[in-house]
Amino acid sequence: MYQFHVFCCTNRRADDHKRGSCAAKDSEKLRDYMKARAKELGIAETRINAAGCLDQCEQGPVMVIYPEGVWYAYKTKEDIDEILSSHLQGGKTVQRLRLQKA
Amino acid sequence: MYQFHVFCCTNRRADDHKRGSCAAKDSEKLRDYMKARAKELGIAETRINAAGCLDQCEQGPVMVIYPEGVWYAYKTKEDIDEILSSHLQGGKTVQRLRLQKA
Repeated sequence: MYQFHVFCCTNRRADDHKRGSCAAKDSEKLRDYMKARAKELGIAETRINAAGCLDQCEQGPVMVIYPEGVWYAYKTKEDIDEILSSHLQGGKTVQRLRLQKA
Repeated sequence: MYQFHVFCCTNRRADDHKRGSCAAKDSEKLRDYMKARAKELGIAETRINAAGCLDQCEQGPVMVIYPEGVWYAYKTKEDIDEILSSHLQGGKTVQRLRLQKA
């Protein structure tokens, strides 16, 4: 159905939860930004989805891109821009943002 | 990270929305059931995630299983049981539940 199907964790927990949560680290806004930018850039056959907890809370915000199953931890709009241009437009994984194995 | 990563749409819209929504057709309960049953059955290296709108609202509830990218439309616990036993345990796609291309 899609060439790239991106799932951004937007799970929210209380701010004092010991594991933290992606939404407490601004993942909702960053996901909205990614979705809007992907559309502006004309990136086709791609969907930027919100998802529930991906169980990598300590490293969040995190996303996973399928079908390749590449996981990223990101913090800023600049990180998102690099994933859009390198991974989704260029087909090249952004090594510096890859998730560390838990 | 996972052998099977399942994303069940749990998006909710108002009951009178013309496209409908998966949550309005009980997808949250069905996803909770699938998650609990997968655990009971000891299905390993698998995550049953909630997801935002997968844009197949009219056919919902829907799910997609990655990395293979197989989409299903389901209605009942029996449908979920068949996806668990056939697809996740047996490695065999459930043809009768595959999503029709929009």
